Amino acid sequence: MAQKRIVIIGGGFGGVHTARTLEKLLRPEEAEICLVNRENYFVFQPLLPEVLTGSLGVLDTVAPIRRLCPRTRLYTREVERIDLAGRQVVMLPGFRPRASHLPYDVLVLAPGAVVDFTGMQGMAEHALPFRTLGDALRLRNRLIQAMEEAENETDLEFRRRLLTFVVAGGGFSGVKVVAEINDFVRGAVRHFRNIRQEDIRSVLVHSGELILPEMSPSLARHAQNVLAKRGIELRLRSRIESATADSAVISGAEVIGTRTVVSTVPAGPAPLIEQLDVPKEKGRLNVTEFLEVRGHEGVVWAVGDCTNAGTPTGRAAESESQAAAGNICAVLRGQTQKSFHFEGYGKLGSLGHHSGVAEVMGLRISGFLAWILWRLFYLGKMPGLDQKFRVAFDSFTSLLFPTDFVQVRIQASDNITYEHFAPGEVVFEEGDVGDRLYVIRKGQVEVLQNGSQVSVLGTGEYFGEMALLSSRPRTATVRALQATDLLAVNKGDFDKLLIGFPEFQSGLSELAARRSA
Amino acid sequence: MAQKRIVIIGGGFGGVHTARTLEKLLRPEEAEICLVNRENYFVFQPLLPEVLTGSLGVLDTVAPIRRLCPRTRLYTREVERIDLAGRQVVMLPGFRPRASHLPYDVLVLAPGAVVDFTGMQGMAEHALPFRTLGDALRLRNRLIQAMEEAENETDLEFRRRLLTFVVAGGGFSGVKVVAEINDFVRGAVRHFRNIRQEDIRSVLVHSGELILPEMSPSLARHAQNVLAKRGIELRLRSRIESATADSAVISGAEVIGTRTVVSTVPAGPAPLIEQLDVPKEKGRLNVTEFLEVRGHEGVVWAVGDCTNAGTPTGRAAESESQAAAGNICAVLRGQTQKSFHFEGYGKLGSLGHHSGVAEVMGLRISGFLAWILWRLFYLGKMPGLDQKFRVAFDSFTSLLFPTDFVQVRIQASDNITYEHFAPGEVVFEEGDVGDRLYVIRKGQVEVLQNGSQVSVLGTGEYFGEMALLSSRPRTATVRALQATDLLAVNKGDFDKLLIGFPEFQSGLSELAARRSA
Repeated sequence: MAQKRIVIIGGGFGGVHTARTLEKLLRPEEAEICLVNRENYFVFQPLLPEVLTGSLGVLDTVAPIRRLCPRTRLYTREVERIDLAGRQVVMLPGFRPRASHLPYDVLVLAPGAVVDFTGMQGMAEHALPFRTLGDALRLRNRLIQAMEEAENETDLEFRRRLLTFVVAGGGFSGVKVVAEINDFVRGAVRHFRNIRQEDIRSVLVHSGELILPEMSPSLARHAQNVLAKRGIELRLRSRIESATADSAVISGAEVIGTRTVVSTVPAGPAPLIEQLDVPKEKGRLNVTEFLEVRGHEGVVWAVGDCTNAGTPTGRAAESESQAAAGNICAVLRGQTQKSFHFEGYGKLGSLGHHSGVAEVMGLRISGFLAWILWRLFYLGKMPGLDQKFRVAFDSFTSLLFPTDFVQVRIQASDNITYEHFAPGEVVFEEGDVGDRLYVIRKGQVEVLQNGSQVSVLGTGEYFGEMALLSSRPRTATVRALQATDLLAVNKGDFDKLLIGFPEFQSGLSELAARRSA
Repeated sequence: MAQKRIVIIGGGFGGVHTARTLEKLLRPEEAEICLVNRENYFVFQPLLPEVLTGSLGVLDTVAPIRRLCPRTRLYTREVERIDLAGRQVVMLPGFRPRASHLPYDVLVLAPGAVVDFTGMQGMAEHALPFRTLGDALRLRNRLIQAMEEAENETDLEFRRRLLTFVVAGGGFSGVKVVAEINDFVRGAVRHFRNIRQEDIRSVLVHSGELILPEMSPSLARHAQNVLAKRGIELRLRSRIESATADSAVISGAEVIGTRTVVSTVPAGPAPLIEQLDVPKEKGRLNVTEFLEVRGHEGVVWAVGDCTNAGTPTGRAAESESQAAAGNICAVLRGQTQKSFHFEGYGKLGSLGHHSGVAEVMGLRISGFLAWILWRLFYLGKMPGLDQKFRVAFDSFTSLLFPTDFVQVRIQASDNITYEHFAPGEVVFEEGDVGDRLYVIRKGQVEVLQNGSQVSVLGTGEYFGEMALLSSRPRTATVRALQATDLLAVNKGDFDKLLIGFPEFQSGLSELAARRSA
């Protein structure tokens, strides 16, 4: 039998567990196992919110894929597309602009889901997703920056927005995130002389009647009481309908002034899956009982969030991976595949603050004991003695020491960004620092000087160039008349573009001259 | 006596120690102490290289300024400019585009130095500086990415470049950085099946006869032997003259193929200091014996890297801060200032790998004992029990556990960047993925198809737009004819600009049509 190449797409629970199981089941001469992932590490997603409070170290929640699957060939690359007809995966370039083609005999799809804001106005521009290690660090930095700014802010209304944190989604992940945000901010407050506990608002928005829909109602109610006692506001039977830089609109009526909206829902299919021309169900891959992708039986399997099988949790993905790996092995050896059935063996969730809820073998547990169970469970799932040791140590020290709150600044903020403004919201005010140029992608704004309208601008027009060209403060106020989408170019990139593209410069100078006249 | 406002610029050794000393010397009713810093944390710079190997946790080397100086009012902002005549500091905006003005009675300048690549062709574009926590994390990510790419690279010449790491500067910082890079990469190799120890090159370039010029020659020679034994190549009496994405040119002759050049030298004055209209010596502030800035005696003091007093080390800055704080206190109380004299009380350096060199009270020590001394010294300097505890713990576990090598990806790479190419270097090749548009800022390139020149482009012209507009691979090869500086716009930003700016789009379409014709 010639050696076959198995290519796995994705390094989450599904991909990594498939690779590990295949390493156990197959002899090296039977198959070469390859895994393609954007990062070289696997993220223990259930522990990720703990990075916020620093109760786990930044690197405690991740493990190098090479160490988890030593026999697997890892490609730390992004996948550009999958060529099902040609049986190959096309990867995006690394250090050099060369694309790489990776042919396969067997393909396993485990790219996970992505946060999908389709149809939620302003969310893509202003809400922070929470899925990756980068997301967790970005959110942590945002929370700290908001507190630093609030400490010295004299505008009380704006200060209140800085200290209001809204989380969408009351599942395991959202509950944990809002609990950790609340713990973190309230813990750090004592280092800020001008911020008091009562200045802080944490709000959890959930569409259902009760949070934690996977838990029994009594435990969910218990969890709600725990969160409420810690000062977290609950908005049940509600959804975030739209967001701007300054606020979140909840189910049509309530507008919450906030600079920080976090979303743990909704999860949509990865773009890679969207591109595939195969049968799908609500965007998810329609798989056979053996977890094969329909139309490509015996060649392509899929596990985790991207399929219509099972519930989208890490433990389900793990169970699916074992089944898929077993079936791949069976097909390679000419044996019979086995149907997949998932049986959960318990539910564990953390509420932050060394408290949790658990349902294990019919028992309902809450409080510190549930938290210990939860932590031990994930400690058991972690590979490598040093990783276990570090997490155990950090869990222990977090009981003893106060919350830390240093930022991890790696890069300046984005340079060319999209922004969304609700009708009536101010883009900038006369006298402000002119730090960016705006182009109206959709909508309408009015330009005001000394309180009276001097012009109205619409789709395709730009504004804000004068302050950038002259390095003076804004000479007018700009306010959205309709719901307006803008493209913003910051000063650094603006200057580079001016030097690089003469037509850009001459176009702008003409416009500026016309407007000054 | 009315309360005075003291404003300190900079949160490094100089600024933080000034604030701490002032907090001890002055009663709250005597002075309000303010500190302005870009980050909300202080960085223990001597320990920063340890972040590379992960022998210290990412956050172990930093401490929140609020905790270090609880009575000081912290502004986590960047300073736009200092208005000496108006006695106020102008800060850049935070969440909103409002500038803030902070008037002062006393000003302390401690902004530190920045890495300055003036006159070193290509270094600003391609060398990685090493001063901040962000720099350390970026370098760590680069090292890991280089190894990940090398693991699967089939072009042997390119693979060699990926695995060659060049560090400029043989002072305490450069020696430590090259030692940590070398330890890290050689330690991580065992997880990569295709990389062998002999594939790795670490090179230290130093302008003097001996590295560690502050140490006695015998210890410096000992350190050189230690580094050489670990496989680090030394280039003494040499300088890096220029760099491109692919290579570093050393003192005119030798060209080292490398994708990673790190510079710990040379340090230039912060832009803030450059802007000030006061007497300077080689760009550094000319200060009085009392550390006052000349022309502003009794109002403005300066400490650390930005002055011409003392040597630019953390310990000197600390000593200067104490003197400056004492003098400020004296002036506020109408007492007499004291002259500043710095006396070093020992020199300590780490060579990585739990080895070091030390000169303390006339004794010369090297090896593990010197490393322990070094680590204990900085442990003693750290504020807060938990920080000390964590560093001590991590120092201990790093003796037991292997090197970890997960990346910390926060953001995609820069969007609009500058690049430098040496004559003969290829910008991209026919068939490559078209991932950016280039504008020639200075220089000349030739466009080749099937090996023959089809055109020559010069300053102000652009190329590469066709592949971006059509999403097809590059249809030609572009090679630099002279030393060439380019502006590169990546695909994401390019697409945003196309949508936002119609004249940009029409200009490019015309150009593309003309070139295809």
